[in-house]
Amino acid sequence: MTENRKITLVERPRYSMPTHNCFKLEHEPVPRPDDNELLIRTLWLSLDPYLHGRMKRISVQAEPVPLGEVMVGATVGRVEESNHPGYEVGGLVVGFWGWQDYVVSSGSGVQKLHTEMEREHPSYALGALSRTSGLGAYVGITEIAQPEPGETVVVGTATGGLGQIAGQLARLRGARTVGIAGSKKKCDFAVQELGYDACVSHKSNDFADELSAACPEGIDVYIETIGGNDLGAVLPLLNLHARMPIFGLMSMYAAQELPKGPDRTMLFLNQCIIKRLFVKGVVSNDYFQSHFGAFQRDMANWIRNGEIKVVEDVVDRLEDAPQALQDMFQTGNNLGKLVVRVGT
Amino acid sequence: MTENRKITLVERPRYSMPTHNCFKLEHEPVPRPDDNELLIRTLWLSLDPYLHGRMKRISVQAEPVPLGEVMVGATVGRVEESNHPGYEVGGLVVGFWGWQDYVVSSGSGVQKLHTEMEREHPSYALGALSRTSGLGAYVGITEIAQPEPGETVVVGTATGGLGQIAGQLARLRGARTVGIAGSKKKCDFAVQELGYDACVSHKSNDFADELSAACPEGIDVYIETIGGNDLGAVLPLLNLHARMPIFGLMSMYAAQELPKGPDRTMLFLNQCIIKRLFVKGVVSNDYFQSHFGAFQRDMANWIRNGEIKVVEDVVDRLEDAPQALQDMFQTGNNLGKLVVRVGT
Repeated sequence: MTENRKITLVERPRYSMPTHNCFKLEHEPVPRPDDNELLIRTLWLSLDPYLHGRMKRISVQAEPVPLGEVMVGATVGRVEESNHPGYEVGGLVVGFWGWQDYVVSSGSGVQKLHTEMEREHPSYALGALSRTSGLGAYVGITEIAQPEPGETVVVGTATGGLGQIAGQLARLRGARTVGIAGSKKKCDFAVQELGYDACVSHKSNDFADELSAACPEGIDVYIETIGGNDLGAVLPLLNLHARMPIFGLMSMYAAQELPKGPDRTMLFLNQCIIKRLFVKGVVSNDYFQSHFGAFQRDMANWIRNGEIKVVEDVVDRLEDAPQALQDMFQTGNNLGKLVVRVGT
Repeated sequence: MTENRKITLVERPRYSMPTHNCFKLEHEPVPRPDDNELLIRTLWLSLDPYLHGRMKRISVQAEPVPLGEVMVGATVGRVEESNHPGYEVGGLVVGFWGWQDYVVSSGSGVQKLHTEMEREHPSYALGALSRTSGLGAYVGITEIAQPEPGETVVVGTATGGLGQIAGQLARLRGARTVGIAGSKKKCDFAVQELGYDACVSHKSNDFADELSAACPEGIDVYIETIGGNDLGAVLPLLNLHARMPIFGLMSMYAAQELPKGPDRTMLFLNQCIIKRLFVKGVVSNDYFQSHFGAFQRDMANWIRNGEIKVVEDVVDRLEDAPQALQDMFQTGNNLGKLVVRVGT
């Protein structure tokens, strides 16, 4: 290849969802690495809910992507050329260089994949073995929520990158696991492929009743990734001393405005008192230094032993990334961690 | 005395606040203890924010007081007669027999005061040394919030039963302490008598700005006892990894309806993620078995050494309890833990 395809952000989402108008496919020559630089060929690109937030003008959790710049995203690649003593040609690396075929890097923000599992499945470095969704699920279950055998764990996005791992980790600890997902199809998949004891679609008219029926002993842990109405159905079911790690509020990323009143914040806090809730906002990367080593070792073992199943939804071309991202928010039809195969 | 004065609940609060119409002073003969019973003379009655909730028809945290029954409340008394082998005449006890001079008890729910500090100051068993506000402040600071030297701790009700202890415990740990109270007078008192570094009145028009000015390094711990607008001013100032034990939502107990929309619950949860907040609903009594012994020992030492100052606002007659309770909600003029001297 002599050409670098890149997809840039050219317009911010005007309404709730990203559209094709937001993105532009551009072509440029492959950049050349200077001294102490390396050229990386992108193999895999991760599509995640938080990207919508980064497209907006006001981004609460991180800097917005500047207009005209390459869309951001977690990536895995192979070193194609290296003028850097720390990297060898052919080595696999993970970083955050976004929606493009090639990038020249100084090595900053680029980590080598050094486990056997990652070399066999480089895309896992964006999901099950990543410092984002994989590490988040691991910390959320093993450090924060700590479900006991027989407790009920509800996972907000049962089949997503973080959710699928969290649900399986909770099951491994002997908990009853109940997923929430966006369609009957996803729910069937969650139960049949991911081993959830039950799964409820939040698009059902009887969502709250169905969730209640799926949790006859109440809810001891709620892995919050979605917010909005889902939380409204979960709250009355929470048991005394329930734990609620919050990883994201996907339903809010796409929302144009806050839900109508009254302001129920105080009802939530009152539930915190009555039920002695333990609520903790979690950003996975905070646990990188302290937990990433143990996490990768444990997770690789679980995957190899078949105790954790990794399910990816693979998009085959970089050009299809904009549509895939839109589908994630609009139809929610992806089954498993959404990754784009950019190169091979 | 041959007469038992008692104040009963005869009408539920119709609007936001209790009124005189809610209460009725009644007289009856002093009851007689049967076999295995004891007669207790009330010495002290505690008035606390939660009592408003117990007066309402729908009480979320505990059973409402039935109409026609004696108003509930924590009490300290002296054993006047005993047909119970476990209690001697003259012994001091703490319980929950409510707004009356005498009660006959089987001993159930009645604990003896056995520390020297409690015998010297029996009313402390309702505040600084109690399983409610005292133990709550202790657990909230030493177990949950754990402020480090130099961190900023904001206390929602700076001069109240729980707040005054929490603020002083945080100061003992080397934290900067900032109180919130309902008047300039209370704030002056908080700084001058209770040792807060600063105190801000939430009735000031510039409350949010004043709180911000009082917390130049942000807020690391918020002892939440009041809710409502106060939390709105606190949230933007919270630092990364701030801790927020929630003991109560006093502003909500008196509210007739929820605040107007939009529903900001998701903004609160989003702050939880962005700032990695740790939010925990706390009911002091949960920690009775595990912490009460250590708490009483530590607290008695601190009081004796002058490291913790106990400030009570004493109402001198049982007949004045209804007015004092109303004042607590309406004017908030009480300075310190509100207790009624029922007998001597």
